[in-house]
Amino acid sequence: MAESMTETTERTAERPATVPRPVGAPDGHDAALILERSRRSVDPELRAAVDSLPASMRRIARYHFGWEHADGTPAAGNEGKAIRPALVLTAAAALGGPEARAGAARAAAAVELVHNFTLLHDDVMDRDATRRHRPTAWAVFGDTDAILAGDALQALALRLLAEDRHPASQAAAARLAACVVELCAGQQADTALEHRAPGEVTLAEVLAMAEAKTGALLGCACAVGALYAGAGKEEAEALDAFGRQAGLAFQLIDDVIGIWGDPGRTGKPAGADLAARKKSLPVVAALTSGAPAAAELAELYSRPHREGREGEEELQRTALAVERAGGRDWAQAQAADRMARAVDDLARAVPDPAHAGGLLALAEFVTRRTS
Amino acid sequence: MAESMTETTERTAERPATVPRPVGAPDGHDAALILERSRRSVDPELRAAVDSLPASMRRIARYHFGWEHADGTPAAGNEGKAIRPALVLTAAAALGGPEARAGAARAAAAVELVHNFTLLHDDVMDRDATRRHRPTAWAVFGDTDAILAGDALQALALRLLAEDRHPASQAAAARLAACVVELCAGQQADTALEHRAPGEVTLAEVLAMAEAKTGALLGCACAVGALYAGAGKEEAEALDAFGRQAGLAFQLIDDVIGIWGDPGRTGKPAGADLAARKKSLPVVAALTSGAPAAAELAELYSRPHREGREGEEELQRTALAVERAGGRDWAQAQAADRMARAVDDLARAVPDPAHAGGLLALAEFVTRRTS
Repeated sequence: MAESMTETTERTAERPATVPRPVGAPDGHDAALILERSRRSVDPELRAAVDSLPASMRRIARYHFGWEHADGTPAAGNEGKAIRPALVLTAAAALGGPEARAGAARAAAAVELVHNFTLLHDDVMDRDATRRHRPTAWAVFGDTDAILAGDALQALALRLLAEDRHPASQAAAARLAACVVELCAGQQADTALEHRAPGEVTLAEVLAMAEAKTGALLGCACAVGALYAGAGKEEAEALDAFGRQAGLAFQLIDDVIGIWGDPGRTGKPAGADLAARKKSLPVVAALTSGAPAAAELAELYSRPHREGREGEEELQRTALAVERAGGRDWAQAQAADRMARAVDDLARAVPDPAHAGGLLALAEFVTRRTS
Repeated sequence: MAESMTETTERTAERPATVPRPVGAPDGHDAALILERSRRSVDPELRAAVDSLPASMRRIARYHFGWEHADGTPAAGNEGKAIRPALVLTAAAALGGPEARAGAARAAAAVELVHNFTLLHDDVMDRDATRRHRPTAWAVFGDTDAILAGDALQALALRLLAEDRHPASQAAAARLAACVVELCAGQQADTALEHRAPGEVTLAEVLAMAEAKTGALLGCACAVGALYAGAGKEEAEALDAFGRQAGLAFQLIDDVIGIWGDPGRTGKPAGADLAARKKSLPVVAALTSGAPAAAELAELYSRPHREGREGEEELQRTALAVERAGGRDWAQAQAADRMARAVDDLARAVPDPAHAGGLLALAEFVTRRTS
């Protein structure tokens, strides 16, 4: 249920998510420009790292990143938004200025490699056949090659840090490796929750899963950037918390869009998460609300989704039940709350709003305030 | 085809492999004692590392290591021979004495974690349902959990090194991460070769595959031990080469046993590799020999194996064809050649035979001179 951020930032809600604009909002910090500039710094590192792989692994990785077609011919490339490396660089800049930013390009590439390792493996496990509008690596090369390419990208990420002469590289590697373990636990929880009966899943469990699966790597990206700026443990922890809370806000909004979102923009029809009976955050909030509509929702979720007109009408009833049981309002309020916490955490780490602006712009971007 | 060393050291050949006893053979270096002593140093590190995992990952890892049954109750444990951590510690001792050995326990645990990550993933990809006389992790917990536990063990290995304060830890991490990439390429080549027609596979390809899949981590284990003894790049490279050549010798002998081995000792009937039509080293040597029996072997390999008495007779004919085409003699001679190279590489790194004895004993153990 925890969607990949890179896949879903194109979505827009039918009505925009109502996260209040935080105090100290960025002026002159445009997320799109930050992302574009970050890509220019990180892409050469990323491509050099991938090109250092043996031919068999390189081929799968280059396909996955969208740099090549399945037959090995060059492709225009669509690597996704690359939010995570941008967070590394922007966090480094916020705490250490342009010099720290320049020194963190390899670490940013390492974080992006970890993200893509998880995408390769998640697609195998979730049997997702499409990503970034192309067949997934396992769909093209088979499960074995996709699993091995993912394994190789994880190793490559940690090799980049181990070979980086920056004084923070070892602490960053320890942090990134610990984050990978958390990402694994998050994905495990996600698949395990999907196999449980809807009535047996608590909101705390789904929130913890979303934090591990989505928040952890965003937090780690920020913390790695802080370490590369020479920041102490407290600042790194505060930026980690910022990234985690922003990640949770993202996931909450994404889950709202997964139920009521704009199919024209997403390629995914509204209600797709409901049709798949996903235990997304608004759904579990509704199921555990104790409201009368919760029982109706549980009853609807206990049956398999049907295609056709009847199924469509049922999806609309299901979405309405989530809404009437308070799932939508809860998710919006939670997202706002998480963004407010993120802003507090950011202020702890970076008290000067002029320096915090870039990170704030990125957090707002992922929660779609600016899209 | 490249079997895991931990699974197969129990095998003995009907007639022992004829690797000549090298000059400078160990006196007073008993491989079984070295392995036992190594286990006592590494086990606490390994268990502490695994116990630091989140509950969902810990459970699968503890089952995989044989410390727990599937229901979480304690098990007697059968982690295999743990050759690789013993190589780390013995290489450290050979170049740096007892102090270097004592400082390398965490690095040895890291290497063993990487080995077990590859076992977890290889079993998923190869659909192997049994390991160490128990159902494999995927057979018990499903593919998703086994893949994630493998991912987590790789991360844990690199976290151990990143958190290790030893001056060699970062260089060791770089080396181990690069080795993981090579292991992935080796496993990829292995599965790709199995899908190709027997006549299209060259001996050079199968040797390169075996070096990447089996030799690389044995070499890396020795090199990591060297680094932890403060050795320079040249000594580390020489010990890496020693481990690689010993690993190839092991694989060659193991492939011989996979065709003519003792079913009583292995649990795997003689001819099992032939029944599975594996393109093992003696088979490819025979197929590419140009001998008259090569054509008969190619013909036999082009048909699926049949169960029953007819199939049995056919297996005997197949083994005979490999032998008559020179596959067995070639493999024995290659194994002897690889062991001789290993001994040379060892002498370059550790000129004093008294210090080299432990590593030599382990190399002989894995190639079954001492079993």
